[in-house]
Formats: sequence, structure tokens, C-alpha cells
Amino acid sequence: MVDGWPARYVPAVLPPSAVDWSADRRALRILDQRALPEQELTIEIRDLEATIGAITSLAIRGAPAIGVGAAIGLVASLDTASGGVGPSIRTLLPGFAERLGRARPTAVNLAWAMGRMVRRGATVNDDELLEALRDEADAIQREDRAMCDAIGRHGLSIVPDGARVLTHCNAGALATSGIGTALAPVYAATAQGKRVTVYVDETRPLRQGARLTAWELARAGIDVTVLPDGAAASLLASGAVDLVIVGADRIAANGDTANKIGTYGVALAANAHGIPFYVAAPWSTVDPATPNGDAIAIEHRGAEELAPLPALARVWNPAFDVTPRALITGFLTDRGFIEPPFRTDGIS
Amino acid sequence: MVDGWPARYVPAVLPPSAVDWSADRRALRILDQRALPEQELTIEIRDLEATIGAITSLAIRGAPAIGVGAAIGLVASLDTASGGVGPSIRTLLPGFAERLGRARPTAVNLAWAMGRMVRRGATVNDDELLEALRDEADAIQREDRAMCDAIGRHGLSIVPDGARVLTHCNAGALATSGIGTALAPVYAATAQGKRVTVYVDETRPLRQGARLTAWELARAGIDVTVLPDGAAASLLASGAVDLVIVGADRIAANGDTANKIGTYGVALAANAHGIPFYVAAPWSTVDPATPNGDAIAIEHRGAEELAPLPALARVWNPAFDVTPRALITGFLTDRGFIEPPFRTDGIS
Repeated sequence: MVDGWPARYVPAVLPPSAVDWSADRRALRILDQRALPEQELTIEIRDLEATIGAITSLAIRGAPAIGVGAAIGLVASLDTASGGVGPSIRTLLPGFAERLGRARPTAVNLAWAMGRMVRRGATVNDDELLEALRDEADAIQREDRAMCDAIGRHGLSIVPDGARVLTHCNAGALATSGIGTALAPVYAATAQGKRVTVYVDETRPLRQGARLTAWELARAGIDVTVLPDGAAASLLASGAVDLVIVGADRIAANGDTANKIGTYGVALAANAHGIPFYVAAPWSTVDPATPNGDAIAIEHRGAEELAPLPALARVWNPAFDVTPRALITGFLTDRGFIEPPFRTDGIS
Repeated sequence: MVDGWPARYVPAVLPPSAVDWSADRRALRILDQRALPEQELTIEIRDLEATIGAITSLAIRGAPAIGVGAAIGLVASLDTASGGVGPSIRTLLPGFAERLGRARPTAVNLAWAMGRMVRRGATVNDDELLEALRDEADAIQREDRAMCDAIGRHGLSIVPDGARVLTHCNAGALATSGIGTALAPVYAATAQGKRVTVYVDETRPLRQGARLTAWELARAGIDVTVLPDGAAASLLASGAVDLVIVGADRIAANGDTANKIGTYGVALAANAHGIPFYVAAPWSTVDPATPNGDAIAIEHRGAEELAPLPALARVWNPAFDVTPRALITGFLTDRGFIEPPFRTDGIS
């Protein structure tokens, strides 16, 4: 019940938290996303190396979840390494925050969360330091959950009873510490008693749609169907889908949007069949300093993600693609629907 | 050197035959496509059950290869079961042909090849029967190779030196007994000394692009790059591709074309970026009795092809999709380029 979110909008069954405190509030508790959907494996992490390892190995993934996980993991790691001694925590803080901040260079929330923790630490004396950092991590988690809730609330208008939604990859609860971004309107509508059907692309090569989105929706009792990425265009042609909602990794000033590879093809097919295509993301995903899609650098990943392959075959494996603004029906954020161009003063 | 194919058009390095006679011409020799690309496994088959098993298990796949394989396998099976005794072959022929013809109901070449074998058998006496059937299987194989060569020859005009081609799934040598259909122009152009670069979609769920197309092209010394299906739209947007060539499972009278799932999305993206999109197939793939794409029944396959999945998730796994005629730049066949509407008198 945060940010004015009425009780009736909270889903009856939520997926377990991707990242949270342990019961004793001295460890980071994560759901190991590498093990899903075969195994629901909860891990408690109390030191720096394990926190970094959880982030680099994708046991935690999704920019919002990484930010929250790193903040909680920083507190737990400092607690363990210092034995709770204030001056020792003060000495360790900058190095720990710096190393955690570099664990995944492209996750903007990670460096942002670490900067925030260090700044909060500078405002208190050594005796209060651990409690202040714990409080700041709580705030980051609380704000992330409120962001998800707000996207869900604003998105209720596009998810009527009986809606059939196609999504891509995982921009759900598992990518945040709350009810997700692209999936937030689905959870919110379901919590209101609406029946919602979700289709999700498998999302090769890492299969986050099949492994993660399908798992968290099924666990929440929501009807979910997985399809191969190549089947999205004919699904949209078949009339089985009312709207598409995807997440975003970065939204340029003109509205061009980078998201998981495969998003652009879905947008083209939705457009060809007159089906609304929405991008749902935190306001913080908007980057007014990036003028358009051409200015977004695309990360390329390794060939091993497409194995097994013939020995002499090469691989083209970009992690993201760019969907031009013209194919996007609306931008749904925690501040409501916004319209490009997005200005550097933060006013849309 | 069949069908007037000049020697200079034959590729220097061909992939091994998907289906052929054994050295003693008494067995069907196949390359087991289930084992590729990890293992290059050749199997000799001499009886009916093993021939049927090779077809149903997809050790042999691709309509032209199935037709040729079944014809050779029928001769080998009759030879083995009869001990070469003419009247015994005569007795066994109808049942063997009928059982083989039902091994994959949707492969039109299979029933066609079996009908042809039975009719040829009816023209000779028992003493000549086995040799006549062997001769008919040879003819089916020879005609299939000539069909591939002709598609390659006619397709030379669309594959200039330096051409960068995107294809989907496998419509190559492994799907035929020759140089393939969609890949025939690539092999023919390469044999002329042209440099050709091929991109191929992974083609989930069975990965025939990554496993088979990449393997046969790499083995022939042709530059090949595999991409996830979801990356095709951004590859086409990037300017890296000059033309798309795909195969076809059925071409309706108006030109609407059924092919492996994912083809339609590639066609939409090619169209959005002004990139020519060709369908290459034997003339026999044209079905003038099917008026348009809506009349093509689409086979749906099992959920296990998308495993592992969460327990409660459903699966939508169509084997084919339909690309509307409006997105197709040209239809390349063994009779040259043809234009819809396709009439029942066989004149395009």
C-alpha cells in the first residue's frame, strides 16, 4: 500500500520477490533467475563477491531489480565485512560501492543506486552509518515498488476486461522489486477482477519470455501462452491479440525506443495489423540527452548464447533493437502517459 | 551435369547428399539430420521400418528429399524382404508403398513418388520389376537434382557478386537430393566465382537454420552468419542485407505463400526497408487449387518443442505461416520466374 495505491489494485497472488531483505534484514535474499523455470531457488547473500556474482551471472537481472539488489547487497556486505564497526564501514563503503557499481556497466540504475548510498552515508556519523544505509536501501526498494504500482494504475485504461496482451522478454515482477513495468497493467487489471490473457514471445537467445514471464504470470494465476519469436507476426495477423505492451531499456528524446532484440519486428507486425503497441517503463528510462535511435549504442553478445552451431558459422547477436517512435502508440510511465519530444528539463 | 547445366555452375564443394543410394545400390544412404551440426552421421537403411522411421523422426526432412529417400528406400526394402524374388516383390509392393506414403501426410512429394513407383511397376513383368523400380527411383532423384539446378540457374540474375542474402530455415541441399531450392542460387553464384554472404535465422523451435543451413553453407566454404529470429528485423534495418530468399511449402493460386514459421515477419521487415523478398521453390509447390492463403491449413506442433517451460504455461506453436503475395518480389522456380495468378492448366 504505497503511493496511494488502493488495496483493490494489488494482485491477490504475487510472484515471489526477485530481490528483498532476508528475514533478519542482514542479507540480500534473491530468487535465482538462472534456475527458473525448473527450480525456484532462493539464495541469501551476505558478502560483496557473492553480490557481484549474482549480478554478473544474471541471477538478478532487470535494471530496477539490479538497483535494489545492489543497495541491499551493499548493506549486507558492509555489515559482514566490518563486524558492524562504524569506522570500518566508513572505510569500506567507497570501494564496495565502486566495485558493485561496475558489475554491469550498462545497467544505469546500478551506478545511480550506489551513488545515492554513498551520498546518504556522507550525511551521518559512523555510529549511525549502517542504519542510515539500511534506511536508504529501504527507500530505493519502496520507490521502485511505487514506480511499478504507478505504471500499473496508469495502465489500467488500456487493459479492459477480456484483454489479450502480447509481450516480449521479461519486464515483469522478476525485473523489478515490485509488480514489473510492462506487466504492471496486467497485474493491476487482474487485481481488479478483469480477466486478462497474455501471450509472450520465447525471446531467444536467453528465453526470458518463456522462462521468466511465463513463470511469474502462471504463478499469479494469469492465463499465459508462449510462442516462438518467429510466430509473433502470424499471431498478430490471426486477430488473437488486442494490444502489445513491452518494456524499454532506453527511450530517446524523439521517442525511438531500445528494448530486447525482437521488439522491432513485433512493432512492425502490430503496425501492419492496426494493433496498438505500447512501451511501458519508468520515467527514468527516458534519456533526453539521446536525440534519437541512431544515437543508441547496441550491445552485442557472445556466440555461445546461440550454441550449438556448426564450427565455421559466425553469429550476429545484438542484445537490443530500436523501435522507431512512429510505430509506438503510447508511452506509459509512472508519471502517466507521456508524449515525445522529451526535454532535458524533465517535462514531456 | 544434368538438364544442360554447364559445368562451371556446379559448386566446387557440395554438402554430402541428404539421401542417395549406398555404394552397392542396395540400400538407402542418408545423412542423419537429427545429429547435425555436432555429428556427421551416415546411415545405410535396408528395410521398410527403418525407412519409415527415418522419415517420421526427421532424420530425412524437406519435401524433395523425402520423395527421393522414400523411392530409394522402397527399392531397398523390397530387395531385402523378397530376397530378390520377382513374384514376392510384386506381392509386397502395394503395401510397402502405401505404408511409406503415409509416413508424413503433409509431404506431398512422398505420396506422389510412391504413386509413380507403383505405376512403373505395373508396366513390367516380375523378372524386370526390381530393376524397373530402381530405374524409376533413379529418375526421381535425377529430376529432383535437375529441378534444383534449374532454380539455381534461373536465380543467378538476382545474386550478383558480393550479394548479401538473408534466408530462413533450411531450403538447401539437405532438403533435397541436389543443391536445394532457396539456396540453389547461392550455390550456383558461388560456383561462378561470385562472393556471396548468407545470413540465416536460427529458426526456432527446431533450429533448422542454425543447425542445417549454417552447416551446409559453411561446409561448402560459403560465408554464413546465424542470428536469432528476433534479430532479423534489425538486421534488415541495418543495411546489411541486399535480398531475402526463402523456400515454400505451398504457394496458393494468388501467390500467397506458406513457409516455415517466421517467414511472414521477415517479409514484413524486408518490405519496410525496401529489400527484395523472393520465394524459391519447385514448380510443383504451386497449388492452383488453393485460391489464397486463408485456404491453407496450418499444422500446429507440440509444446515439447519449446521446452523447458513453466508447468502452467500454454504453447502456440504453428509450423508455418502465410506471407501475402503483396510482400513477395518474385517467385523463382525451375521454370524460371513466374507471376500469379497461377492457373490449374499449369500456365502461370
